[in-house]
Amino acid sequence: MKKTILLTVLALNGLTSFAQSNDEKNIKLFYKKALTESKCYTWLEYLSNDIGSRLSGSPTAAAAVQYTKLQLDRLGLDKVYLQEVMVPHWVRGEKETAYILDNKAKTVVPICALGGSVATAKGGLTAEVIEVKGIKELAELGDKVKGKIVFYNRPMNPENIETFTSYGACVDQRYAGAKEAAKLGAVGTIVRSMNLRLDDFPHTGAQSYGDLPKEQYIPTAAISTNGAELLSASLKRNPALKFYFKQSCETLPDVLSHNVIGELTGKEHPENIMVVGGHLDSWDLADGSHDDGAGVVQSMEVLRILKNLDYKPKNTIRVVLFMNEENGGKGGAKYEEISKKNNENHIFALESDSGGFSPRGFSIEADDTNLKKIQGYKDLFEPYLVHSFTIGHAGSDINHLTSKAIVKAGLKPDSQRYFDYHHAANDKFDAINKRELELGAATMTALMYLMDQNGIETPKVN
Amino acid sequence: MKKTILLTVLALNGLTSFAQSNDEKNIKLFYKKALTESKCYTWLEYLSNDIGSRLSGSPTAAAAVQYTKLQLDRLGLDKVYLQEVMVPHWVRGEKETAYILDNKAKTVVPICALGGSVATAKGGLTAEVIEVKGIKELAELGDKVKGKIVFYNRPMNPENIETFTSYGACVDQRYAGAKEAAKLGAVGTIVRSMNLRLDDFPHTGAQSYGDLPKEQYIPTAAISTNGAELLSASLKRNPALKFYFKQSCETLPDVLSHNVIGELTGKEHPENIMVVGGHLDSWDLADGSHDDGAGVVQSMEVLRILKNLDYKPKNTIRVVLFMNEENGGKGGAKYEEISKKNNENHIFALESDSGGFSPRGFSIEADDTNLKKIQGYKDLFEPYLVHSFTIGHAGSDINHLTSKAIVKAGLKPDSQRYFDYHHAANDKFDAINKRELELGAATMTALMYLMDQNGIETPKVN
Repeated sequence: MKKTILLTVLALNGLTSFAQSNDEKNIKLFYKKALTESKCYTWLEYLSNDIGSRLSGSPTAAAAVQYTKLQLDRLGLDKVYLQEVMVPHWVRGEKETAYILDNKAKTVVPICALGGSVATAKGGLTAEVIEVKGIKELAELGDKVKGKIVFYNRPMNPENIETFTSYGACVDQRYAGAKEAAKLGAVGTIVRSMNLRLDDFPHTGAQSYGDLPKEQYIPTAAISTNGAELLSASLKRNPALKFYFKQSCETLPDVLSHNVIGELTGKEHPENIMVVGGHLDSWDLADGSHDDGAGVVQSMEVLRILKNLDYKPKNTIRVVLFMNEENGGKGGAKYEEISKKNNENHIFALESDSGGFSPRGFSIEADDTNLKKIQGYKDLFEPYLVHSFTIGHAGSDINHLTSKAIVKAGLKPDSQRYFDYHHAANDKFDAINKRELELGAATMTALMYLMDQNGIETPKVN
Repeated sequence: MKKTILLTVLALNGLTSFAQSNDEKNIKLFYKKALTESKCYTWLEYLSNDIGSRLSGSPTAAAAVQYTKLQLDRLGLDKVYLQEVMVPHWVRGEKETAYILDNKAKTVVPICALGGSVATAKGGLTAEVIEVKGIKELAELGDKVKGKIVFYNRPMNPENIETFTSYGACVDQRYAGAKEAAKLGAVGTIVRSMNLRLDDFPHTGAQSYGDLPKEQYIPTAAISTNGAELLSASLKRNPALKFYFKQSCETLPDVLSHNVIGELTGKEHPENIMVVGGHLDSWDLADGSHDDGAGVVQSMEVLRILKNLDYKPKNTIRVVLFMNEENGGKGGAKYEEISKKNNENHIFALESDSGGFSPRGFSIEADDTNLKKIQGYKDLFEPYLVHSFTIGHAGSDINHLTSKAIVKAGLKPDSQRYFDYHHAANDKFDAINKRELELGAATMTALMYLMDQNGIETPKVN
């Protein structure tokens, strides 16, 4: 019955005056299906609770590849396949320990090694601490850094409404802090967790030594925000205090892994490809339900809804579950490499990698013409309280795509709670609200449908 | 310094071309103050974790009156006072027990008495069960109901985007279900919890026997959604199964309690009153952090921000923390009664009683002219992702206000998670996100400021 409804209204799409109304009806149907029969929540439950954390190269990441492929197989798509990709294999090893050594008093603080970091010596590392608010301040200290642990303590700015803005303005401390400190002779770095609230969770995340010679690598770890506050206050009282930390992480040889891909082949322009995706890998401290289990199952749900409604897309709609977004981006790069080799033409890419919270809109990478075209759909989304269609970063995985004329969009969920969980041990299934997850999937389905129906505007050749 | 900024821009308000820009600057300041120095989160922490649940008539409700009055006193407002009000005093008594008795097998299920319900006999109540989807279906059953427990099992509709719509379409089962079933000779009622997800929390809430004679009162309780699913499935297999429940709740004599009131007196029109409020009482199963601890501290925060900025309102801005919204509405009614007696003229009332989640907009009670005027502020709220300004119920406490020309608004937070917690044992402080709470307070401050600056349109006298 539902199938018939969708087909009928689509058949009428030629009449412009009817098109709006058909779009309204179809979008309503997508939301209804997401809210009443979606599989995304149960898929995520399995990914999170049965498989667990999915760091690239881990056996659980491999299990997630097999599980999601099987689920896509069951949807009856036109194609489902794996795409091989070699990924880094970093392992945390034993749980880290750390304490502040203030005269004779030891105060244990929660830390976790940053992804890609080297270990400390087996017995750990003890040194005096120099606190800075960022890399720029560090540079000004020059020689004073030598032999010290650099403590990056610039907090995320609470004044920004969009928390990603505050993240973007802070994350250089985590990503490049160790490299910059090592250049000046520091022996280690401790970075305040990228978290807007004060709590006891250290938040891991990628860091890079860049082109530093291996012998100059220094261990680097994140400290919880409460731990950072304590360390900072303790340093004010006693600048000569010492910090001890011990971690046994290491980088093993690269491992063969996979992107997981499924598609509905286009009926009019099979050569035009529209991608929807998230990343299958997560950090290792939790099951990554928000980052990015949510994006994975929402992307799968887009295809499920369209297939279930027997929607015949004009263009090829492809779900891609990217491997290794967190610490290497190898999945996204490999997908683009293969796509180029096969002369594929991507016209649209949609990513969900900002958590499974209530959808608020899309962050869009497009020229003015295409941006305006998408903003023209705003009224269609209003009944679903989806209201924000702005220029901005669309997604790390689809960032690799380089087709000549391509529009990219990232689902923009409410961001207030995201950094409470991001890369930390509490990014677990119980932090997910079923309806919010489903509303996100419906919102993505609606945009994918509109993009398929109306295409993108390509620059005219003069 | 901040004070100076606000005063300067306000002084310029006469120039219309500058007004917009001043509004923008002032609203930015409200959000900044809320996100960087607000007291609402620490107030709520105390209310929730130190005082706890605040059912009308309880010692903890009285403690909440004293605590919030003290905090308002400390803000240095022009007036802070208590307003006496007699409130119902219902107590739950011992924790309820219930089970399904299917042949010889007993399966325990989670229930809780509904507010205002009578107890079962001391040994509990056992009877056969008749499941209905609502009061209308019940009426059609007539005599078949006699001697039975009526099980109201109409679920909240997941298709609505606004969860309050689904609540409104279901809650008659809870509120009037016992009364209607008693009329037909039922011996008790069990109501599916008003909850969109499947879990093990029974959700309490108000119910009323209406004008039924006391001897006809029957005990009524809510069952968790998982419990409701189980009972329904069990009934399909065995319609002759029995249900047992025991509860020892009772209604004690009314108790003297208070509304808590504070105000900044208007400089131009002290006689025009603008109210902002929430309700101080909560249900007894948890500390009511969302319902309505959040609304209480957000309303207090509105006054704190304005006072802290040394804002001199044109009209009197009054915070009212209403007692007894949950099971009687006596605080709201008393406030209106006293207001009438004092010939007060309320022109605007703002309530926050929909949870402490990310603010999305306002639900507005106004004529077309005033609605359009408020909708005209939409652009000012856009940077804060506040986007929805629609006609709708503003709030139960301010619902009592009857001034001739009054505009009412209710803060509309994201509603997806609200009924996960509403009236249940998990409505606790850990379900609150600090930033979301603060953003709500800032959003309320911004609207209160705009209403004070621009007033309301009153119908012309012919």
